[in-house]
Amino acid sequence: MIDINQIRADTPAASRLAYLHNAGAALMPAPVVAAMKGHIDLESEIGGYAAADRASDRLEAVYGSVARLLNASPDEIALVENATVAWQMAFYSLSFREGDRILTAEAEYAANYVAFLQAAKRTGAVIDVVPSDATGEFDVGALERMIDERVKLIAITWVPTNGGLTNPAAAIGRIARAHGIPYLLDACQAVGQMEVDVEAIGCDMLSATGRKFLRGPRGTGFLYVRGALLQQLEPPMIDHFAAPWVSRDEYRLRDDARRFETWENNYAARLGLGAAVDYALDIGMDAIEERCRLLAGRLRSGLASIRGITIHDLGRKPGAIVSFTLDGYEAEAIVSSAAAAGITIGASDPSSTRIDAEIRELPPLVRASPHYYNTQAEIDRLIDHVADLTSR
Amino acid sequence: MIDINQIRADTPAASRLAYLHNAGAALMPAPVVAAMKGHIDLESEIGGYAAADRASDRLEAVYGSVARLLNASPDEIALVENATVAWQMAFYSLSFREGDRILTAEAEYAANYVAFLQAAKRTGAVIDVVPSDATGEFDVGALERMIDERVKLIAITWVPTNGGLTNPAAAIGRIARAHGIPYLLDACQAVGQMEVDVEAIGCDMLSATGRKFLRGPRGTGFLYVRGALLQQLEPPMIDHFAAPWVSRDEYRLRDDARRFETWENNYAARLGLGAAVDYALDIGMDAIEERCRLLAGRLRSGLASIRGITIHDLGRKPGAIVSFTLDGYEAEAIVSSAAAAGITIGASDPSSTRIDAEIRELPPLVRASPHYYNTQAEIDRLIDHVADLTSR
Repeated sequence: MIDINQIRADTPAASRLAYLHNAGAALMPAPVVAAMKGHIDLESEIGGYAAADRASDRLEAVYGSVARLLNASPDEIALVENATVAWQMAFYSLSFREGDRILTAEAEYAANYVAFLQAAKRTGAVIDVVPSDATGEFDVGALERMIDERVKLIAITWVPTNGGLTNPAAAIGRIARAHGIPYLLDACQAVGQMEVDVEAIGCDMLSATGRKFLRGPRGTGFLYVRGALLQQLEPPMIDHFAAPWVSRDEYRLRDDARRFETWENNYAARLGLGAAVDYALDIGMDAIEERCRLLAGRLRSGLASIRGITIHDLGRKPGAIVSFTLDGYEAEAIVSSAAAAGITIGASDPSSTRIDAEIRELPPLVRASPHYYNTQAEIDRLIDHVADLTSR
Repeated sequence: MIDINQIRADTPAASRLAYLHNAGAALMPAPVVAAMKGHIDLESEIGGYAAADRASDRLEAVYGSVARLLNASPDEIALVENATVAWQMAFYSLSFREGDRILTAEAEYAANYVAFLQAAKRTGAVIDVVPSDATGEFDVGALERMIDERVKLIAITWVPTNGGLTNPAAAIGRIARAHGIPYLLDACQAVGQMEVDVEAIGCDMLSATGRKFLRGPRGTGFLYVRGALLQQLEPPMIDHFAAPWVSRDEYRLRDDARRFETWENNYAARLGLGAAVDYALDIGMDAIEERCRLLAGRLRSGLASIRGITIHDLGRKPGAIVSFTLDGYEAEAIVSSAAAAGITIGASDPSSTRIDAEIRELPPLVRASPHYYNTQAEIDRLIDHVADLTSR
């Protein structure tokens, strides 16, 4: 059960702000802040190396926490600077040749798509966008029909950045497995919002960030790589941590997923990430997911009832990102107006999800993303604020 | 002038520890700690995006500070997670073909050497190690003789990790320029310890860390790339920050060195890095360098006078890293014994600088690295401690 009073006590800013920007960067709970500041203090007391040594058990435990969150093994986890680096280390480990196909989704995130374009330019690989179905979800039937022996990667964003769409990650996984095609899942907006089980999904690689629904620090991310695939992937760049220098002309890649890491890290941030994951696991991802859906559903239907509002969320079972426009208002104007009223929301630019935005002719969207620590009253504050705008 | 009392007041741990481990991770001065903790507090008060917006002027100023430190332009600076990532983004941007030669030094750092090996394996490029001269420094005359049209990169570590050696970075730069060969300088142990002027050195790319002699946070680093070269380098991996997605099938690399960055960052750490650079610049790199040499010289000669001690520092003008062994003692035993006496030092393993270690048949070395905030009394504490060990 969610103890909302305790959770809000752990989130001091929640008493001042209606913070509905969790798809951007969530408010960190107190244990995350304490873990980071405590480690910085320790570093200034005994030095950065001694502090990391003293925290070594807790630092090691972060791998276990992330593994539990994903239903993976700790040696399948790499901790890196952000979700982009996580995704890049996986993607750029793969080799493509002229004519190889990369299958992706319409709402694929810009960071990933430019990397596809770079790989295509370098190798002659082809990017094929799997269409969406009538509900706006990634069309699993179309994927099945598009598969041939040239498909060398399926890479999609589970929960795109620009709305409530939740793509059918597990159905895609079944097809990828049936055809033996590597499957890279960008779970940046999913982790911390909903249950994530790499076994149930069947993905081979999964990337995510700390700062969004996980409520961790900025500048943290992680990569999961399935053990069976791990040994076949040589990272695009290595140092002596990823690949110890074992003799003059030889390095040997680590056996575990830390081959995707570098030696030096921000340990305060790592401890913050671990505290964030533990905090979420203590509450329970099932309870978090349920409350996210409840609050997002309330927000979506409340907004939908306001004249001039268009909700842009796609899919059968939208998640905690609510995207909308209001006739006659720029998205940024609504974000600013809400900020002035103590309500924190964000906007999503078409350039973040260019293909989907072009197909749907989307302007910049207002993006409101509640989380389990929000209250129904906060949801209603945003609804009322937007309703007031239209009645001015 | 160095106001040692103020500086030590800014470094609270200096009253308890003789901290001589600045080649590992230095003690951060109070403004660095305050910058980081202050930003984490701000993030927990208003959220991670709003905090970065509010700190945007100070975050932008970090580029200017690093540029001043190096005598570079702010648009030639990329801020990244660590010195290894900085070095990798430069190195892996370069293209090599079968038979191309990479020239490096005997004491090249392990992280860089394994990357050379990976590039050699992928492309057929050859790694040629330029010998050292009689003093142990990189032999500039030998470099000159080794150059031919197949040399596509000169990449060396300015101050190797395993001792006082300071390689002749500027003399190498003159040769690189005369022959039009890209020159990548690993300045990890030099920055913060001595004056660094990329114009005087003539390097095209320079990588460094925050945590060592700069006294910045762990998990910070930066890359300098000369403007003239910058436009020719496509980073090995890109996201939509490095290369905005400008139309469906096109990205456009940023014009500045931030093409080597990713969108998401640890802003608290960046502000800490900026505070560290400003702190060093306020004191003055000339004064810092002078005091580093004074203290390291005192330590080196004091240790040299102890029976059974061998000093392993090479070169004509050794810097602030003092490496030694003591007959009958393992390096780690001396590090532990010193730690128990409140003296923080480190050790350097042969695997960090394998080629140099093999040539010189080096065991693990004790590594003591004073900084300007240390006192002569602290230097003498370490000398006395080691002398006591030998007289037991």
